[in-house]
Amino acid sequence: MGLPNTPQVKKVITQAIAEDLSQGDVTTEALIPKTQQGKASIVVKANGILAGVEVAKQVLLKVDPELKIAILIEDGTEVKPGDIVAKIEGRVVSILKAERVASNFLQHLSGIASETGHYVQAVKGLPVQITDTRKTTPCLRTLGKYAVRVGGGKNHRMNLGDGILIKDNHLAALHHQGLSIKEIVIKARQKASPELKIEVEVKTTQEAVEAVEAGADIIMLDNMGLEDMRQAVQLIKGRALIEASGGITLDRVRAVAETGVDLISIGALTHSAKALDISLELD
Amino acid sequence: MGLPNTPQVKKVITQAIAEDLSQGDVTTEALIPKTQQGKASIVVKANGILAGVEVAKQVLLKVDPELKIAILIEDGTEVKPGDIVAKIEGRVVSILKAERVASNFLQHLSGIASETGHYVQAVKGLPVQITDTRKTTPCLRTLGKYAVRVGGGKNHRMNLGDGILIKDNHLAALHHQGLSIKEIVIKARQKASPELKIEVEVKTTQEAVEAVEAGADIIMLDNMGLEDMRQAVQLIKGRALIEASGGITLDRVRAVAETGVDLISIGALTHSAKALDISLELD
Amino acid sequence: MGLPNTPQVKKVITQAIAEDLSQGDVTTEALIPKTQQGKASIVVKANGILAGVEVAKQVLLKVDPELKIAILIEDGTEVKPGDIVAKIEGRVVSILKAERVASNFLQHLSGIASETGHYVQAVKGLPVQITDTRKTTPCLRTLGKYAVRVGGGKNHRMNLGDGILIKDNHLAALHHQGLSIKEIVIKARQKASPELKIEVEVKTTQEAVEAVEAGADIIMLDNMGLEDMRQAVQLIKGRALIEASGGITLDRVRAVAETGVDLISIGALTHSAKALDISLELD
Amino acid sequence: MGLPNTPQVKKVITQAIAEDLSQGDVTTEALIPKTQQGKASIVVKANGILAGVEVAKQVLLKVDPELKIAILIEDGTEVKPGDIVAKIEGRVVSILKAERVASNFLQHLSGIASETGHYVQAVKGLPVQITDTRKTTPCLRTLGKYAVRVGGGKNHRMNLGDGILIKDNHLAALHHQGLSIKEIVIKARQKASPELKIEVEVKTTQEAVEAVEAGADIIMLDNMGLEDMRQAVQLIKGRALIEASGGITLDRVRAVAETGVDLISIGALTHSAKALDISLELD
Amino acid sequence: MGLPNTPQVKKVITQAIAEDLSQGDVTTEALIPKTQQGKASIVVKANGILAGVEVAKQVLLKVDPELKIAILIEDGTEVKPGDIVAKIEGRVVSILKAERVASNFLQHLSGIASETGHYVQAVKGLPVQITDTRKTTPCLRTLGKYAVRVGGGKNHRMNLGDGILIKDNHLAALHHQGLSIKEIVIKARQKASPELKIEVEVKTTQEAVEAVEAGADIIMLDNMGLEDMRQAVQLIKGRALIEASGGITLDRVRAVAETGVDLISIGALTHSAKALDISLELD
Amino acid sequence: MGLPNTPQVKKVITQAIAEDLSQGDVTTEALIPKTQQGKASIVVKANGILAGVEVAKQVLLKVDPELKIAILIEDGTEVKPGDIVAKIEGRVVSILKAERVASNFLQHLSGIASETGHYVQAVKGLPVQITDTRKTTPCLRTLGKYAVRVGGGKNHRMNLGDGILIKDNHLAALHHQGLSIKEIVIKARQKASPELKIEVEVKTTQEAVEAVEAGADIIMLDNMGLEDMRQAVQLIKGRALIEASGGITLDRVRAVAETGVDLISIGALTHSAKALDISLELD
Repeated sequence: MGLPNTPQVKKVITQAIAEDLSQGDVTTEALIPKTQQGKASIVVKANGILAGVEVAKQVLLKVDPELKIAILIEDGTEVKPGDIVAKIEGRVVSILKAERVASNFLQHLSGIASETGHYVQAVKGLPVQITDTRKTTPCLRTLGKYAVRVGGGKNHRMNLGDGILIKDNHLAALHHQGLSIKEIVIKARQKASPELKIEVEVKTTQEAVEAVEAGADIIMLDNMGLEDMRQAVQLIKGRALIEASGGITLDRVRAVAETGVDLISIGALTHSAKALDISLELD
Repeated sequence: MGLPNTPQVKKVITQAIAEDLSQGDVTTEALIPKTQQGKASIVVKANGILAGVEVAKQVLLKVDPELKIAILIEDGTEVKPGDIVAKIEGRVVSILKAERVASNFLQHLSGIASETGHYVQAVKGLPVQITDTRKTTPCLRTLGKYAVRVGGGKNHRMNLGDGILIKDNHLAALHHQGLSIKEIVIKARQKASPELKIEVEVKTTQEAVEAVEAGADIIMLDNMGLEDMRQAVQLIKGRALIEASGGITLDRVRAVAETGVDLISIGALTHSAKALDISLELD
Repeated sequence: MGLPNTPQVKKVITQAIAEDLSQGDVTTEALIPKTQQGKASIVVKANGILAGVEVAKQVLLKVDPELKIAILIEDGTEVKPGDIVAKIEGRVVSILKAERVASNFLQHLSGIASETGHYVQAVKGLPVQITDTRKTTPCLRTLGKYAVRVGGGKNHRMNLGDGILIKDNHLAALHHQGLSIKEIVIKARQKASPELKIEVEVKTTQEAVEAVEAGADIIMLDNMGLEDMRQAVQLIKGRALIEASGGITLDRVRAVAETGVDLISIGALTHSAKALDISLELD
Repeated sequence: MGLPNTPQVKKVITQAIAEDLSQGDVTTEALIPKTQQGKASIVVKANGILAGVEVAKQVLLKVDPELKIAILIEDGTEVKPGDIVAKIEGRVVSILKAERVASNFLQHLSGIASETGHYVQAVKGLPVQITDTRKTTPCLRTLGKYAVRVGGGKNHRMNLGDGILIKDNHLAALHHQGLSIKEIVIKARQKASPELKIEVEVKTTQEAVEAVEAGADIIMLDNMGLEDMRQAVQLIKGRALIEASGGITLDRVRAVAETGVDLISIGALTHSAKALDISLELD
Repeated sequence: MGLPNTPQVKKVITQAIAEDLSQGDVTTEALIPKTQQGKASIVVKANGILAGVEVAKQVLLKVDPELKIAILIEDGTEVKPGDIVAKIEGRVVSILKAERVASNFLQHLSGIASETGHYVQAVKGLPVQITDTRKTTPCLRTLGKYAVRVGGGKNHRMNLGDGILIKDNHLAALHHQGLSIKEIVIKARQKASPELKIEVEVKTTQEAVEAVEAGADIIMLDNMGLEDMRQAVQLIKGRALIEASGGITLDRVRAVAETGVDLISIGALTHSAKALDISLELD
Repeated sequence: MGLPNTPQVKKVITQAIAEDLSQGDVTTEALIPKTQQGKASIVVKANGILAGVEVAKQVLLKVDPELKIAILIEDGTEVKPGDIVAKIEGRVVSILKAERVASNFLQHLSGIASETGHYVQAVKGLPVQITDTRKTTPCLRTLGKYAVRVGGGKNHRMNLGDGILIKDNHLAALHHQGLSIKEIVIKARQKASPELKIEVEVKTTQEAVEAVEAGADIIMLDNMGLEDMRQAVQLIKGRALIEASGGITLDRVRAVAETGVDLISIGALTHSAKALDISLELD
C-alpha cells in the first residue's frame, strides 16, 4: 500500500507546483521577509480517511528542502475535524508558497480514500473486493489508485498493458469477422503474454459461461441485474473470478455483493469523489 | 473562452496518454487487425454542460493523426442523454487505444462545467459573477479553469503570480510585526507590480473598510454571515469589488448573491464536481 | 505485435536524435547545399529477422517531415544480404543527418529479433514459448520487448507493476519472519490486485509443489537440471504454468523444452544480442 | 575517464527507473514491510572489466537517497566471479526496487568495457589506439563511450557536431557537382569551425594521398586490405593520423595494427558487446 | 524581490548546464585529478549592480552538491572592480566545469540589473516607476524580470495571461468590426477575469480619455511627444495609472518622467543590456 | 550555416512560447473572435543583418500550424527600416499570441548577427576569422552561435566536449604538481580523444612557443599587446593556428587582425549585442 514513489509521481508533484508558482508568489514576496521563521499545522475539517500526507510533505520539501515536517497521522487513518495531520516549521515564505498545492493533493486523495472507505464499509463482512477502474483523473492515475488502496479498495488494471480485458467495443469490432467469444478468448491467449490474466466483459450469463469455458480468468458482468448476477455466480464461481461492473451506487453495493461476486468495480471512486476538507494554517 | 492550447496543456494530454498506453494496449493488439477501419461516436449519458470536446479530439489525434473526427456539439452547449458529441472514423485499434483517456478528460471537464452551470443558474438575473479558486486538481488547473469559463463562471487568480491576495495566513504572519491591515496593503502596493490588483481577505466589516481605504481593489469576505455581507456591501460597494468566499453551497448561493456582492468564489467547482457520464462507443 | 507507438517510445526517438544532432551536423552543413535532393536505400548486410523499420522511419521523419519513405519489407520478415528494406527520397542533408540514428535503432532491434528467432527455431514443434526478461538495455525496454515479439517470442513482465513475481531475494528477505512459501503466496494474493497473476521462483521440485498448492499461477524453475525440471513438470503440469529460467543457451534450449515446461525465459535475447548489419546508403 | 555526470546521463538514469517502476513494485509492496532493513552485495559472475558502478550507485540513491552504498571495486578493474563490487545497506523494499535497473546498467557497461579490453589487449605493445564509433545503442551514447574509455579505448566523435568526417555518402552526394576530394576538403576547411579536425574516409591509397595533401587531419581507410593499409601508412604517415575502419574482428585486429595505422575504430564495441554477468543479492 | 526559485528556473539552470557539459569537459577530465581540492573566487571586473549570485550558486551546486560556497555580496549591491562576490571550495574539476555557466548567468543578470539601475537613478526623486516589458530574452523571462527588480525597477506583465493589455494590433483587428475604444474596453471587462487590470495602448490624448472613461485601469501612451504626455497626465491623472512607452532612452527618461506619468516601460532593460564583466578565478 | 534544427532548439522554442502563453492570452481571447482571419507583416525598424526568420516561423507554426507564412528575406541579408521580412496569414488570435515570442527571437538573433557583421566588416580584406566564445546567453547557445555564423563569423567550441582548451585556470590548478606547459600538452594528447584539437591559452610569447613545440594545434594569446602578438605570429605562424582573445573592441579589432593572427574571438558578440528592432504588425 506504500506510496508509489515513482519518477512519474515526482513529475506530477513538480508540475503541480509549477502550475501555481511559475511566476513566484507575488503577495508573499512583497510582504513577508525571506528570513522570517514560523510554524504551521495541517488541520482536518471533515470526517474521512486520510491519504496523501507523504505527497503533501514532498510538495513542501520540493518548495523548500529545509522545512521541518513532522507527520502526526499516517495515510489510511480515519480522521475527524480538528485532527492535526502534520506540523511544519521553517521559513514562512516557503510554507505559504507550498500551502495550496500541498492542500490540493491532500484534499483530492483523501476524498478518494474516504469515498472508497464508504463502499468498503458497506460490504463489510462479505467475501468481496471493491476495486477502482481506469476512469481516473488525467495525470493522477498512480496517485488516485494509491488512494483507493489506502481506502481499503483494490486496484483493477493500472493501464492498457497490464491485463487483457476484452470489452464490448472489442467484441463489436470483432463481430464483423464472425468470431465467437470462445474464439476471441482463445486468440487472446495465443497472442498475448502468458504472464497476463484474461478478463471478458459479458452481458448475459450465457456469454459468461462461454468465456469461462474458453479459459478466461475473470468475467466482468456488465450492468447486469441482481438475479442475473446470482445466476452467473452459480454457473461459474470457482472457475474464474467474477466482477460486477456498471451503475454501482452506495445504496446498491451491498445487494450486489450479496450475489456472491468476487469483485465490484466502481469508476466513481476516482472520477467523482468529493475533496475532503483539510487546510494548512500558520500557527 | 477559447481552449487554452498552451504547451502545458499539450504536456498534460501527452502524460495522460502515457499513463494509459505506456506499455501499449495488449488486448487490442492481440485481437484487432492493425488495418481494420471503423466508426465510433462520443455519446452523452446524462444532463449537463459539455466541456473538453477539443481536448478529446486532441487525445484521439495524438494517438493517431489520421483519425477523422467531426465535432457535432461545441463546448458550452447543454447536453442530454443520447446526444452525439462527435463522430470518429479510422483505424479501430487507434480508437480503442484512445477511448479511455479521451473520455476521462471529457467527463472530468464536463463535470466541472455542469457544476458551474448549476451555480450560475442559481444566481440568474443578479449582478454577480461566480468564480473558481486555486483549489484545483493538481496538473489540471488550466483545463479546469477553462471548464469553469465554459460553464459560465469567471476565473479567479490562475496562480500565485497574477494577483495579490493577502490572506489570513499572510495577516497572521505579519501580526508579529505589528502591522495594521492598512500598512500591509500600502506595503503591498509599494513592493508589487503596478499591473496587479490587490485583494484582501477580511473577517469583519471593519477590516473591509480599512482595506478599501488603504487602496485594496477587491475585498474578500471570508465565511461571513449574510447580514455582515450586506453591511459590508453597504459600506464599501463601488470603491472596491466585493467577493464572498467560503462555505458557499448551491442552496445558499442565491441568498449570498442577494447581499449585493460582486463575486462569489467556490472551490467545489473544481475540486468536487462529479464527472459527467459520457462514453465513446464503436458503431 | 504492433509497434508500441507510445509517448515513451517517441521520447526515446527524440533523445537518440538529440544525442547525435544536438550541435548540428557540421560536415553535412559545410558541404551539402540545403536544397539538394537525393535518394537512398536501407540495405541489409547479413542474415536475420528485420525489426524496427517503423522506428527508423520515425527517426527520418522527425529529422525532416518532408522525406518520402517507402517501406519495402515489414518487421518480422527474414532478410538476407542485399535486401532493400526501404527507399528514401528528399533533401540529402536530412537523409545524412538521420542516417546513423535510424541505422542504430534498426541494427539493435533486428539483432534482438534475430537472436529470438534462433531460439524459437530451436524449439520448433514443441508446445513451449520463448520469453524475454526484464534484463533489457536501459531506456529501450519497450522497443526491445517489441523486437522479441517480432522474433516470435513472448513478453514476460514489462515492469515491476504488471505481475507478481516472488523471487529468491523476496524469499530471503521474508526468511527472517519465518514465513513458508505457502504463507508468502497467500499473503501476496490477499494484498495484491486480483487482476495480476502470481509467479514464484523455486529451486526445488518440493518448493514448486508447495507454491502451486498455495495458488501460484506460474512456477519459475530457477537454474534447475533437466531431470528436476522433468519431475517438476510431472508434479504440477496443468495446475500452473511452468517456466524454465537461468543459464539457457542455444545449445541447451531444445533439451529444456523437451522436459515439458510451458515457458523458457532468456535474458540474453535483450542484453546480449549482436546488432544485425544494416546500412543506409545514398543511391 | 571520469564518469560523465551530465544532465543527460541523469535523465537516462531517471528514465530507466521509470521504465521498471512506473507502476510501483507490486510484489515487494505486497510482501515486504516498508521499515525492514537489510544488506545486499553486488556480485560478479564472470571475467571482465568493471564499468558503471557509479551509475548503479546513482540508480540506488535515486530510488532511495537513504541507502548506504560502499563501492569496493572501481571502474576499470579486471574482475572475476565472486568479486564483490559494492555493499548496500538500508530499506529492503528500496534495494529490491532498484535491483534490476542498477544491474542492467552495470551489466551493459561492463560488457562494453570488457569487449574493449579484449581489443586493447590484442594490440598490446603496438603504437595504436582502439576507438569506438557512433554505432552506439540509442540513448546510451554518453555512457557507452564512457565504458569504452574504461576498457582502455579512445572515443571517436561523440556526435555529428564535434568533428568533420567526410564519408562515402558525402562524397557520393557531392559527386554530382563534379568536386574532387581535394576541393571537398578545402571547402570543408573554409566553411567549418577552425576548432575542428577534418577527417576523410577513403577507399584507395590514392584518395588517401589526395586528402592529406588537401589538408585533412585524419584519413580513414575504409575496409581496406592489409597490403593497401601498409602502403597508405608509407605514403602519408606523419602528415595525418591514419584510421583503419570496417570489418575489424578480434582475430584480425593485431594484423591491422601491425600495418602502422594510428587508430582502429570498431563499431562492435558498443553495438554488439555481450552483457557481463553481475547480480545484486540480498545477504 | 526574492529570487524566483520556481520549477521553471531550475529547468533553465539544468538546460544551461546541459548546453555546456552534455559531453563532459574533455580538457579538465584529461588533466585534473578527480580528487584534487581547490579554492576559487567570483570577482567583479566592472562597475554595476550585482544580480544572480544565487543562480550562480545553484549552477555550482547542481554540478557538484559538495562544493562549499560562501556568498559575500548579495544581489542588489552596487559593485566595483575587484569586489569578491563569492568564495568557492571543493573539487577543482567541479569548479572548472561549472565556471562558464555560472559566470554567464551572473554576467547576463547583473547586466540587466545595472542597466535598470541607470534608468532608476536618472529619475531619482520623481514619483515614477521604471518597468520592463515582455521583450525579454527567450527562456530567461523569469530571471530577467527578477534582475529588473534587483536593479530597482518594477515588472510589467509577466506573460499574456496576467493582465489585459489592449494594444494597437488588437485595435487594428477590431477596427473591422467598427468597435470604439470604449466598446472594446467594456467588452474586455465583461469577458475577462475580474481579478485582472485592463490597460489600453493609445496614440492620442483623446483616446486616453475615452479609455479612462470606459473604465481602463492603466493607459499606455505609445511613443507620444512630451507635450502630449503632459496633456494626457492633466486630463486623466488619478483616474488611471499612466504609462509612457516606446523610444525611451537614458538621455530622455527624466524629461519623460517630469511629465507626470506614473510608469515608464523600457524594453531595452532586458533585450539590450550589456553583460557585466564578472569572472570566476581559481585562487 | 543552416539553422540548427535540433531537438534542443525545438525545446527552446517550446519553452519560450510557454513563458508567454502558459495561461493563455487573456486580452486576445476576450476580444478577438476565434474565427477572424487576418494578415500581418514582420517589419524591420533598424539597419542590420537578419537572423532567425526560420525560428520566428517555427514559433508561429507551433502556436498555430495552419498559419501561412511567406518568408521574403533570408537570414544573412543586410536589412534596413521598412523591409518586410515575412508575410503571415491566418487566424488573428494565433498571430497575436505568437507575436511577442517570434519577435523576441528575431530581435535577439538579428542583434547578434548584426554585431558580428560589424566586426567582420572591420577586418575586411585581412586573412583572419572572427569567432565567438562560450560566453553565450544561457539556453541560447546553439541559436546564438548560429547567428554568429549568419553574421559572417565562425564558431569557437560549442561546449566543453568538442575541443581541448587548456586555460589559465587549468594551468593554475596544475601548477601545484610542477608540470610545465609542454608536459601538460603531452598529457592532454595522451588522455584525450585523437579526434580533438588541442588549444592552449598563453600569456607570453615564450609560453606560445613552448605550447607549439609540445604539439598544440591552436595557441590563444590572452589579452596580449599588439607588439607581443606580432612577435608570437613571427615565432609560430604556420605551426599552429593563432587566436587573439580578450578585450577586443570594434575600435581595436583591425589593429589586432593586422598582427597576423588567424582568429580573433569576441565574447561580446553573444553576450552584449543590442537587439535589432523588428516588429510584427497586423495589416
